[in-house]
Amino acid sequence: MGGGAGPGPIVAGAARAVRADKHLRLTVVGEQSAIEYALLACDGHHPRLHIFPACQTIPPDANLTTEFRLKPDSSVARLWQLWVEQKVEAVIGTGSAEAFAAAGLRHRRLLTGVRMPGLAAFISTLRGPCLLIDVAANAHPTPDELFQYGAMGVVFVRQIYGRDNPSVGLLSAGPMDLERHESSRQVIALFQHSHLAGQFCGRLDAQDLHRGPADVLVCERSLGSFVFKLWQGMNDFAGKMPLERVATNPAPLAGPYLGMDKVCLWCADAVTPNAVESALAQVARHFELGLNEQIVKELEAGPLVRRG
Amino acid sequence: MGGGAGPGPIVAGAARAVRADKHLRLTVVGEQSAIEYALLACDGHHPRLHIFPACQTIPPDANLTTEFRLKPDSSVARLWQLWVEQKVEAVIGTGSAEAFAAAGLRHRRLLTGVRMPGLAAFISTLRGPCLLIDVAANAHPTPDELFQYGAMGVVFVRQIYGRDNPSVGLLSAGPMDLERHESSRQVIALFQHSHLAGQFCGRLDAQDLHRGPADVLVCERSLGSFVFKLWQGMNDFAGKMPLERVATNPAPLAGPYLGMDKVCLWCADAVTPNAVESALAQVARHFELGLNEQIVKELEAGPLVRRG
Repeated sequence: MGGGAGPGPIVAGAARAVRADKHLRLTVVGEQSAIEYALLACDGHHPRLHIFPACQTIPPDANLTTEFRLKPDSSVARLWQLWVEQKVEAVIGTGSAEAFAAAGLRHRRLLTGVRMPGLAAFISTLRGPCLLIDVAANAHPTPDELFQYGAMGVVFVRQIYGRDNPSVGLLSAGPMDLERHESSRQVIALFQHSHLAGQFCGRLDAQDLHRGPADVLVCERSLGSFVFKLWQGMNDFAGKMPLERVATNPAPLAGPYLGMDKVCLWCADAVTPNAVESALAQVARHFELGLNEQIVKELEAGPLVRRG
Repeated sequence: MGGGAGPGPIVAGAARAVRADKHLRLTVVGEQSAIEYALLACDGHHPRLHIFPACQTIPPDANLTTEFRLKPDSSVARLWQLWVEQKVEAVIGTGSAEAFAAAGLRHRRLLTGVRMPGLAAFISTLRGPCLLIDVAANAHPTPDELFQYGAMGVVFVRQIYGRDNPSVGLLSAGPMDLERHESSRQVIALFQHSHLAGQFCGRLDAQDLHRGPADVLVCERSLGSFVFKLWQGMNDFAGKMPLERVATNPAPLAGPYLGMDKVCLWCADAVTPNAVESALAQVARHFELGLNEQIVKELEAGPLVRRG
């Protein structure tokens, strides 16, 4: 329900996808009558396309802890309920990234070795799409968690984009108070003493961001969210630029929620039927490539594993 | 000395300016032989152009508190010394904005009513230049201080750009933890209960930043610095865009350090002789318009004055 355009485009994309793939079963979560209406409008009724009703909504800027307690019947809560009850193998969320990430976190079903999951998003740069992690899940990440974001992001970019040895950098918020300075010093040390040392390109500055200084950019949630929103705002701005590299290699709309023990994607606003289909294709790739297993292995190779 | 290009362009601009204005006396602070060499190179020697030698340098990313103690002979420390000793009526800094702001703050010479000064910078938007404050001075601003940044920024934009009732907004870092949320709630309440209520346009999102959602954008230092650096990086990027409004109305390179009891400007990197001349012209306007007196008056009109 969460997308700004309502359930119409989501339902239309879902209907197209189940018709195209005879092994796919989909459940659309949200306000029943609105979904029924959208299904009628696109002639989308199908035996493998289900509705899971949810009728409460969570306003933007709400206190999420309170809202989740008071509104068990919101679409975002029901979505993750399906996942916890093992009724689905993957979830795709839209609307508020923070609500999606926080609702998923409540169940603490993480991959082995993961300390905190991170929601990633893509930004378009002159070098192609860059994976930004975290943009919504973790308000106060520890250095360990930031290192793991880098390790998980590297696996994702390597597998999905086929880039050998993707580069990873720490995006810096600029002048730092002592606390932040100490934290970023520790993140840098973790990378430098890990198997990712050769791929780590250090602390990166805002000044070079539009050039795509690394394949994976690790950052605090508030910074990641800020950059992602700024980029979304500049999309139409950027669309007018004579920069073929940006235009021919656009960033995907869906970003993975890395570290969760199933496949989870989040779609930014402006969801179209095509975006839904391409997110579903990305889910399929995630399974084919065994991405979660690779993430577990990658984290085992890192400096943070406690053995025995 | 601090500009990336060394003292050459600064000295050339200063030499041009003293020749053009027979009432102007200028002192260039920095490494003596480098300045002498630059003066020779541009044939710039002039009886009203002085050198104040300073031979230590402060590296980027240094711990400023320690550096200032250990290096009393840095150009940034000497610059502010001239100011404290009343030998100059205005200062213009280049190089690291944080070092410039922090060195100035050590002397605590603020305008009446000002709690903390804020270093402002301009960003180009589709609606013309936007004043961003603070970008370098205040790591942990209180709601009162953020309100005052807005009030000072409004005076500056009103006077320098002649805009009636400039709009002012609070730039938000995105999803907020409780502490930040409470602080921004308080800032909003201060504006809404002040004489600036009609000009206040609330909390603004990254998504709209490139459109110039307000004339003055109040924000935390880390966010302001991040945005300013991002914009600087995108300058050549933006220069290629078919956006006449941005190109014909470029943002000034010099931003005011508002709240200090003299006139203080800071120039971003890439200082050219023209940028120095235009910064000097801005200093002259600052005096002509009695900007500091207006700031004191504006703050008296605000909700934070303790009388008696």
